[in-house]
Amino acid sequence: MAEALTSEAILAATEEVLRRYGPAKATVVDVAKALGVSHGSVYRHFATKAVLREAVTRRWLDAIHEEMEKEFDPNLSAGDLLRDWLQRLFDKKRLSHTEDVELFTTFRTLVGENSAVIEYHLDHLVGQVARIIRAGVDTQEFVTDDVEKTAQAVWDATQVFHHPAHAQEWGNPHIQDAFDAVVSLVVAGLRYNRTPSATGDA
Amino acid sequence: MAEALTSEAILAATEEVLRRYGPAKATVVDVAKALGVSHGSVYRHFATKAVLREAVTRRWLDAIHEEMEKEFDPNLSAGDLLRDWLQRLFDKKRLSHTEDVELFTTFRTLVGENSAVIEYHLDHLVGQVARIIRAGVDTQEFVTDDVEKTAQAVWDATQVFHHPAHAQEWGNPHIQDAFDAVVSLVVAGLRYNRTPSATGDA
Repeated sequence: MAEALTSEAILAATEEVLRRYGPAKATVVDVAKALGVSHGSVYRHFATKAVLREAVTRRWLDAIHEEMEKEFDPNLSAGDLLRDWLQRLFDKKRLSHTEDVELFTTFRTLVGENSAVIEYHLDHLVGQVARIIRAGVDTQEFVTDDVEKTAQAVWDATQVFHHPAHAQEWGNPHIQDAFDAVVSLVVAGLRYNRTPSATGDA
Repeated sequence: MAEALTSEAILAATEEVLRRYGPAKATVVDVAKALGVSHGSVYRHFATKAVLREAVTRRWLDAIHEEMEKEFDPNLSAGDLLRDWLQRLFDKKRLSHTEDVELFTTFRTLVGENSAVIEYHLDHLVGQVARIIRAGVDTQEFVTDDVEKTAQAVWDATQVFHHPAHAQEWGNPHIQDAFDAVVSLVVAGLRYNRTPSATGDA
Protein backbone atom coordinates (compact mmCIF):
# COMPACT_ATOMS: atom_id res chain seq x y z
CA MET A 1 0.00 0.00 0.00
CA ALA A 2 2.66 2.52 1.13
CA GLU A 3 4.46 2.39 -2.23
CA ALA A 4 1.52 4.01 -4.02
CA LEU A 5 0.99 6.65 -1.32
CA THR A 6 1.64 10.18 -2.64
CA SER A 7 1.96 13.43 -0.69
CA GLU A 8 -0.99 14.75 -2.66
CA ALA A 9 -3.18 11.83 -1.54
CA ILE A 10 -2.17 12.45 2.08
CA LEU A 11 -2.99 16.14 1.80
CA ALA A 12 -6.39 15.46 0.25
CA ALA A 13 -7.17 12.95 3.02
CA THR A 14 -5.95 15.40 5.68
CA GLU A 15 -8.31 18.09 4.38
CA GLU A 16 -11.19 15.61 4.55
CA VAL A 17 -10.25 14.50 8.08
CA LEU A 18 -9.94 18.13 9.23
CA ARG A 19 -13.34 18.91 7.75
CA ARG A 20 -14.86 15.90 9.53
CA TYR A 21 -13.26 16.14 13.00
CA GLY A 22 -12.21 19.81 13.19
CA PRO A 23 -8.66 21.06 13.71
CA ALA A 24 -8.68 20.42 17.48
CA LYS A 25 -9.43 16.69 17.20
CA ALA A 26 -7.97 15.57 13.85
CA THR A 27 -4.90 13.34 14.26
CA VAL A 28 -2.32 11.74 11.97
CA VAL A 29 -3.79 8.36 12.92
CA ASP A 30 -7.17 9.52 11.53
CA VAL A 31 -5.46 10.46 8.27
CA ALA A 32 -3.67 7.10 8.08
CA LYS A 33 -6.95 5.24 8.78
CA ALA A 34 -8.77 7.20 6.07
CA LEU A 35 -6.07 6.12 3.61
CA GLY A 36 -5.84 2.53 4.90
CA VAL A 37 -2.13 2.87 5.71
CA SER A 38 -0.02 2.94 8.89
CA HIS A 39 0.70 6.29 10.50
CA GLY A 40 4.40 5.54 9.85
CA SER A 41 3.67 5.79 6.11
CA VAL A 42 2.20 9.26 6.60
CA TYR A 43 5.21 10.35 8.69
CA ARG A 44 7.56 9.24 5.89
CA HIS A 45 6.03 12.07 3.81
CA PHE A 46 5.43 14.62 6.59
CA ALA A 47 7.81 14.45 9.55
CA THR A 48 5.43 15.88 12.14
CA LYS A 49 1.76 16.68 12.54
CA ALA A 50 2.65 20.40 12.44
CA VAL A 51 4.45 19.98 9.09
CA LEU A 52 1.43 18.13 7.69
CA ARG A 53 -0.99 20.82 8.89
CA GLU A 54 1.14 23.57 7.41
CA ALA A 55 1.37 21.71 4.08
CA VAL A 56 -2.39 21.25 3.83
CA THR A 57 -2.94 24.91 4.71
CA ARG A 58 -0.50 26.07 2.03
CA ARG A 59 -2.14 23.78 -0.50
CA TRP A 60 -5.53 25.34 0.26
CA LEU A 61 -4.12 28.87 0.02
CA ASP A 62 -2.23 28.07 -3.20
CA ALA A 63 -5.51 27.04 -4.80
CA ILE A 64 -6.88 30.52 -3.96
CA HIS A 65 -3.73 32.24 -5.24
CA GLU A 66 -3.89 30.34 -8.50
CA GLU A 67 -7.55 31.15 -9.08
CA MET A 68 -6.86 34.82 -8.38
CA GLU A 69 -3.99 34.95 -10.86
CA LYS A 70 -5.47 35.68 -14.23
CA GLU A 71 -4.10 37.39 -17.29
CA PHE A 72 -5.15 41.02 -17.45
CA ASP A 73 -7.81 41.86 -20.00
CA PRO A 74 -6.04 44.54 -22.08
CA ASN A 75 -9.36 46.27 -22.81
CA LEU A 76 -10.02 47.10 -19.16
CA SER A 77 -8.79 50.15 -17.30
CA ALA A 78 -6.64 49.52 -14.24
CA GLY A 79 -9.57 50.69 -12.11
CA ASP A 80 -11.83 48.06 -13.66
CA LEU A 81 -9.11 45.39 -13.35
CA LEU A 82 -8.80 46.18 -9.66
CA ARG A 83 -12.57 46.18 -9.17
CA ASP A 84 -12.89 42.80 -10.93
CA TRP A 85 -10.04 41.31 -8.94
CA LEU A 86 -11.46 42.45 -5.59
CA GLN A 87 -14.93 41.27 -6.62
CA ARG A 88 -13.60 37.81 -7.51
CA LEU A 89 -11.78 37.56 -4.20
CA PHE A 90 -14.86 38.69 -2.28
CA ASP A 91 -17.15 36.25 -4.16
CA LYS A 92 -14.72 33.41 -3.57
CA LYS A 93 -14.39 34.09 0.16
CA ARG A 94 -18.11 34.62 0.60
CA LEU A 95 -18.94 31.42 -1.28
CA SER A 96 -16.41 29.33 0.65
CA HIS A 97 -17.87 30.69 3.90
CA THR A 98 -21.51 30.02 3.04
CA GLU A 99 -21.01 26.74 1.16
CA ASP A 100 -18.90 24.95 3.74
CA VAL A 101 -18.65 26.89 6.96
CA GLU A 102 -16.87 23.99 8.79
CA LEU A 103 -14.06 23.91 6.23
CA PHE A 104 -13.85 27.72 6.23
CA THR A 105 -13.59 27.78 10.03
CA THR A 106 -11.08 24.94 10.00
CA PHE A 107 -8.77 26.75 7.61
CA ARG A 108 -9.27 29.99 9.47
CA THR A 109 -7.95 28.22 12.59
CA LEU A 110 -5.07 26.60 10.71
CA VAL A 111 -3.99 29.86 9.05
CA GLY A 112 -4.37 31.71 12.35
CA GLU A 113 -2.05 29.36 14.23
CA ASN A 114 0.84 29.92 11.82
CA SER A 115 2.01 33.49 11.27
CA ALA A 116 4.46 32.42 8.53
CA VAL A 117 1.51 31.07 6.54
CA ILE A 118 -0.48 34.28 7.05
CA GLU A 119 2.46 36.29 5.78
CA TYR A 120 2.88 33.97 2.78
CA HIS A 121 -0.81 34.38 1.91
CA LEU A 122 -0.94 38.16 2.37
CA ASP A 123 2.32 38.74 0.48
CA HIS A 124 0.93 36.80 -2.42
CA LEU A 125 -2.42 38.59 -2.64
CA VAL A 126 -1.10 42.09 -1.90
CA GLY A 127 1.53 41.35 -4.57
CA GLN A 128 -1.27 40.76 -7.07
CA VAL A 129 -2.88 44.07 -6.10
CA ALA A 130 0.52 45.74 -6.59
CA ARG A 131 0.76 44.29 -10.09
CA ILE A 132 -2.57 45.86 -11.03
CA ILE A 133 -1.60 49.20 -9.50
CA ARG A 134 1.73 49.15 -11.35
CA ALA A 135 -0.15 48.59 -14.62
CA GLY A 136 -2.31 51.62 -13.78
CA VAL A 137 0.73 53.76 -12.98
CA ASP A 138 2.33 52.72 -16.30
CA THR A 139 -0.67 54.00 -18.24
CA GLN A 140 -0.84 57.12 -16.02
CA GLU A 141 -4.33 56.20 -14.85
CA PHE A 142 -3.12 55.86 -11.25
CA VAL A 143 -0.83 58.18 -9.32
CA THR A 144 1.45 56.89 -6.57
CA ASP A 145 5.14 57.11 -5.73
CA ASP A 146 5.08 53.87 -3.73
CA VAL A 147 3.26 50.99 -5.40
CA GLU A 148 3.85 48.46 -2.58
CA LYS A 149 2.63 50.77 0.13
CA THR A 150 -0.41 51.76 -1.91
CA ALA A 151 -1.23 48.11 -2.62
CA GLN A 152 -1.17 47.48 1.13
CA ALA A 153 -3.48 50.47 1.66
CA VAL A 154 -5.95 49.11 -0.92
CA TRP A 155 -5.80 45.75 0.84
CA ASP A 156 -6.38 47.34 4.27
CA ALA A 157 -9.23 49.53 3.00
CA THR A 158 -11.07 46.44 1.72
CA GLN A 159 -10.56 44.18 4.77
CA VAL A 160 -14.32 43.99 5.40
CA PHE A 161 -14.62 42.05 2.16
CA HIS A 162 -11.85 39.49 2.64
CA HIS A 163 -10.73 39.31 6.30
CA PRO A 164 -12.37 36.24 7.89
CA ALA A 165 -13.18 38.23 11.05
CA HIS A 166 -15.88 39.95 8.94
CA ALA A 167 -17.36 36.74 7.51
CA GLN A 168 -20.57 37.19 9.55
CA GLU A 169 -21.24 40.43 7.65
CA TRP A 170 -21.00 38.81 4.21
CA GLY A 171 -24.59 37.59 4.37
CA ASN A 172 -25.89 41.13 4.94
CA PRO A 173 -28.25 42.09 2.07
CA HIS A 174 -26.47 45.45 1.60
CA ILE A 175 -22.97 44.02 1.48
CA GLN A 176 -22.60 44.28 -2.31
CA ASP A 177 -23.59 47.98 -2.18
CA ALA A 178 -21.03 48.51 0.58
CA PHE A 179 -18.40 46.77 -1.54
CA ASP A 180 -19.21 48.93 -4.58
CA ALA A 181 -19.03 52.14 -2.54
CA VAL A 182 -15.67 51.28 -0.94
CA VAL A 183 -14.11 50.14 -4.21
CA SER A 184 -15.33 53.29 -6.01
CA LEU A 185 -13.77 55.42 -3.28
CA VAL A 186 -10.49 53.48 -3.45
CA VAL A 187 -10.26 53.60 -7.24
CA ALA A 188 -11.00 57.33 -7.18
CA GLY A 189 -8.25 57.69 -4.58
CA LEU A 190 -5.76 55.82 -6.77
CA ARG A 191 -6.54 58.20 -9.62
CA TYR A 192 -5.85 61.17 -7.36
CA ASN A 193 -3.58 60.04 -4.54
CA ARG A 194 -1.07 62.87 -4.53
CA THR A 195 1.02 64.07 -1.63
CA PRO A 196 -0.14 67.51 -0.37
CA SER A 197 2.86 69.27 -1.93
CA ALA A 198 2.03 67.87 -5.37
CA THR A 199 -1.63 68.91 -5.22
CA GLY A 200 -1.80 71.98 -7.37
CA ASP A 201 -5.10 71.07 -8.95
CA ALA A 202 -7.31 70.37 -5.90
CA MET B 1 -29.71 54.10 51.68
CA ALA B 2 -32.07 53.60 48.73
CA GLU B 3 -33.24 57.23 48.78
CA ALA B 4 -29.76 58.48 47.88
CA LEU B 5 -29.23 55.83 45.23
CA THR B 6 -29.03 57.36 41.75
CA SER B 7 -29.11 55.61 38.39
CA GLU B 8 -25.71 57.08 37.68
CA ALA B 9 -24.24 55.48 40.85
CA ILE B 10 -25.73 52.12 39.84
CA LEU B 11 -24.26 52.40 36.34
CA ALA B 12 -20.80 53.30 37.68
CA ALA B 13 -20.92 50.36 40.11
CA THR B 14 -22.13 48.04 37.32
CA GLU B 15 -19.19 49.01 35.14
CA GLU B 16 -16.83 48.27 38.02
CA VAL B 17 -18.50 44.91 38.72
CA LEU B 18 -18.37 43.97 35.04
CA ARG B 19 -14.70 44.87 34.94
CA ARG B 20 -14.00 42.74 38.00
CA TYR B 21 -16.10 39.62 37.28
CA GLY B 22 -16.50 39.74 33.51
CA PRO B 23 -19.83 39.89 31.64
CA ALA B 24 -20.53 36.16 32.03
CA LYS B 25 -20.41 36.16 35.84
CA ALA B 26 -21.48 39.66 36.94
CA THR B 27 -24.91 39.71 38.61
CA VAL B 28 -27.31 42.34 39.92
CA VAL B 29 -26.61 41.01 43.42
CA ASP B 30 -22.90 41.85 42.92
CA VAL B 31 -23.86 45.39 41.92
CA ALA B 32 -26.14 45.76 44.96
CA LYS B 33 -23.39 44.43 47.25
CA ALA B 34 -20.85 46.87 45.82
CA LEU B 35 -23.27 49.70 46.61
CA GLY B 36 -24.29 48.35 50.04
CA VAL B 37 -27.98 48.22 49.02
CA SER B 38 -30.52 45.46 48.42
CA HIS B 39 -30.93 44.12 44.89
CA GLY B 40 -34.52 45.35 45.08
CA SER B 41 -33.18 48.91 45.19
CA VAL B 42 -31.26 48.30 41.98
CA TYR B 43 -34.33 46.80 40.29
CA ARG B 44 -36.34 49.93 41.17
CA HIS B 45 -34.05 51.82 38.76
CA PHE B 46 -33.47 49.07 36.17
CA ALA B 47 -36.30 46.56 35.79
CA THR B 48 -34.14 43.66 34.59
CA LYS B 49 -30.50 42.66 34.36
CA ALA B 50 -30.73 43.04 30.55
CA VAL B 51 -32.01 46.62 30.91
CA LEU B 52 -29.15 47.41 33.31
CA ARG B 53 -26.55 45.92 30.98
CA GLU B 54 -27.91 47.85 28.02
CA ALA B 55 -27.90 51.09 30.03
CA VAL B 56 -24.29 50.68 31.10
CA THR B 57 -23.28 49.86 27.54
CA ARG B 58 -25.01 52.95 26.16
CA ARG B 59 -23.38 55.08 28.87
CA TRP B 60 -19.95 53.80 27.82
CA LEU B 61 -20.68 54.42 24.14
CA ASP B 62 -22.12 57.89 24.84
CA ALA B 63 -18.84 58.85 26.50
CA ILE B 64 -17.07 57.93 23.24
CA HIS B 65 -19.62 59.79 21.12
CA GLU B 66 -19.26 62.91 23.22
CA GLU B 67 -15.47 62.88 23.07
CA MET B 68 -15.62 62.44 19.30
CA GLU B 69 -17.98 65.39 18.87
CA LYS B 70 -15.88 68.49 18.64
CA GLU B 71 -16.42 71.79 16.94
CA PHE B 72 -14.74 71.94 13.54
CA ASP B 73 -11.60 74.03 13.33
CA PRO B 74 -12.52 76.49 10.53
CA ASN B 75 -8.87 76.69 9.43
CA LEU B 76 -8.71 73.02 8.50
CA SER B 77 -9.68 71.54 5.13
CA ALA B 78 -12.36 68.85 5.21
CA GLY B 79 -9.65 66.31 4.39
CA ASP B 80 -7.66 67.32 7.46
CA LEU B 81 -10.81 67.38 9.62
CA LEU B 82 -11.59 63.84 8.54
CA ARG B 83 -8.02 62.71 9.10
CA ASP B 84 -7.99 64.24 12.60
CA TRP B 85 -11.33 62.71 13.48
CA LEU B 86 -10.31 59.23 12.35
CA GLN B 87 -6.97 59.59 14.15
CA ARG B 88 -8.70 60.55 17.41
CA LEU B 89 -11.07 57.60 17.13
CA PHE B 90 -8.18 55.23 16.39
CA ASP B 91 -6.07 56.58 19.28
CA LYS B 92 -9.00 56.30 21.62
CA LYS B 93 -9.83 52.71 20.66
CA ARG B 94 -6.19 51.68 20.73
CA LEU B 95 -5.64 53.24 24.13
CA SER B 96 -8.75 51.71 25.66
CA HIS B 97 -7.65 48.31 24.32
CA THR B 98 -4.08 48.48 25.63
CA GLU B 99 -4.80 50.27 28.91
CA ASP B 100 -7.61 48.06 30.14
CA VAL B 101 -8.05 45.01 27.98
CA GLU B 102 -10.56 43.41 30.42
CA LEU B 103 -12.88 46.41 30.21
CA PHE B 104 -12.43 46.59 26.43
CA THR B 105 -13.30 42.89 26.07
CA THR B 106 -16.23 43.27 28.46
CA PHE B 107 -17.76 46.08 26.45
CA ARG B 108 -17.02 44.28 23.22
CA THR B 109 -19.12 41.38 24.56
CA LEU B 110 -21.89 43.66 25.80
CA VAL B 111 -22.10 45.60 22.53
CA GLY B 112 -21.93 42.35 20.55
CA GLU B 113 -24.92 40.82 22.36
CA ASN B 114 -27.24 43.71 21.48
CA SER B 115 -27.67 44.59 17.83
CA ALA B 116 -29.78 47.68 18.66
CA VAL B 117 -26.83 49.07 20.62
CA ILE B 118 -24.42 48.35 17.75
CA GLU B 119 -26.75 50.19 15.38
CA TYR B 120 -27.05 53.13 17.80
CA HIS B 121 -23.25 53.35 18.04
CA LEU B 122 -22.56 53.03 14.31
CA ASP B 123 -25.33 55.47 13.35
CA HIS B 124 -23.82 58.02 15.67
CA LEU B 125 -20.24 57.72 14.47
CA VAL B 126 -21.05 57.35 10.77
CA GLY B 127 -23.28 60.41 11.25
CA GLN B 128 -20.26 62.38 12.45
CA VAL B 129 -18.29 61.28 9.38
CA ALA B 130 -21.22 62.40 7.22
CA ARG B 131 -21.13 65.85 8.85
CA ILE B 132 -17.47 66.25 7.90
CA ILE B 133 -18.09 65.03 4.35
CA ARG B 134 -21.02 67.42 3.99
CA ALA B 135 -18.77 70.30 5.08
CA GLY B 136 -16.28 69.22 2.39
CA VAL B 137 -18.98 69.06 -0.26
CA ASP B 138 -20.17 72.55 0.73
CA THR B 139 -16.71 74.01 0.10
CA GLN B 140 -16.38 71.92 -3.09
CA GLU B 141 -13.34 70.13 -1.71
CA PHE B 142 -15.16 66.78 -1.81
CA VAL B 143 -17.29 65.37 -4.60
CA THR B 144 -20.18 63.01 -3.91
CA ASP B 145 -23.85 62.83 -4.77
CA ASP B 146 -24.70 60.70 -1.72
CA VAL B 147 -23.17 61.93 1.53
CA GLU B 148 -24.64 59.16 3.71
CA LYS B 149 -23.48 56.36 1.46
CA THR B 150 -20.04 57.89 1.11
CA ALA B 151 -19.76 58.29 4.90
CA GLN B 152 -20.54 54.59 5.25
CA ALA B 153 -17.86 53.79 2.64
CA VAL B 154 -15.27 55.84 4.57
CA TRP B 155 -16.29 54.00 7.72
CA ASP B 156 -16.02 50.59 6.03
CA ALA B 157 -12.66 51.45 4.41
CA THR B 158 -11.19 52.26 7.84
CA GLN B 159 -12.57 49.26 9.78
CA VAL B 160 -9.05 47.97 10.53
CA PHE B 161 -8.57 51.04 12.72
CA HIS B 162 -11.77 50.92 14.75
CA HIS B 163 -13.50 47.53 14.51
CA PRO B 164 -12.68 45.55 17.69
CA ALA B 165 -12.07 42.38 15.64
CA HIS B 166 -8.82 44.05 14.53
CA ALA B 167 -7.67 45.07 18.03
CA GLN B 168 -4.82 42.53 17.97
CA GLU B 169 -3.30 44.42 15.01
CA TRP B 170 -3.24 47.78 16.82
CA GLY B 171 0.01 46.96 18.59
CA ASN B 172 1.78 46.32 15.27
CA PRO B 173 4.69 48.78 14.92
CA HIS B 174 3.62 49.68 11.35
CA ILE B 175 -0.01 50.34 12.20
CA GLN B 176 0.29 54.15 12.13
CA ASP B 177 1.87 54.01 8.64
CA ALA B 178 -0.97 51.73 7.54
CA PHE B 179 -3.48 54.22 8.94
CA ASP B 180 -1.82 57.15 7.15
CA ALA B 181 -1.79 55.29 3.84
CA VAL B 182 -5.45 54.27 4.02
CA VAL B 183 -6.63 57.72 5.11
CA SER B 184 -4.61 59.40 2.34
CA LEU B 185 -6.21 57.08 -0.20
CA VAL B 186 -9.70 57.72 1.19
CA VAL B 187 -9.29 61.51 1.31
CA ALA B 188 -7.93 61.47 -2.26
CA GLY B 189 -10.96 59.40 -3.24
CA LEU B 190 -13.34 61.93 -1.66
CA ARG B 191 -11.71 64.68 -3.68
CA TYR B 192 -12.22 62.71 -6.86
CA ASN B 193 -15.07 60.30 -6.33
CA ARG B 194 -17.05 60.91 -9.50
CA THR B 195 -19.36 58.53 -11.26
CA PRO B 196 -17.92 57.38 -14.61
CA SER B 197 -20.32 59.56 -16.63
CA ALA B 198 -19.20 62.69 -14.77
CA THR B 199 -15.48 62.02 -15.24
CA GLY B 200 -14.50 64.27 -18.05
CA ASP B 201 -11.16 65.20 -16.54
CA ALA B 202 -9.64 61.78 -15.79
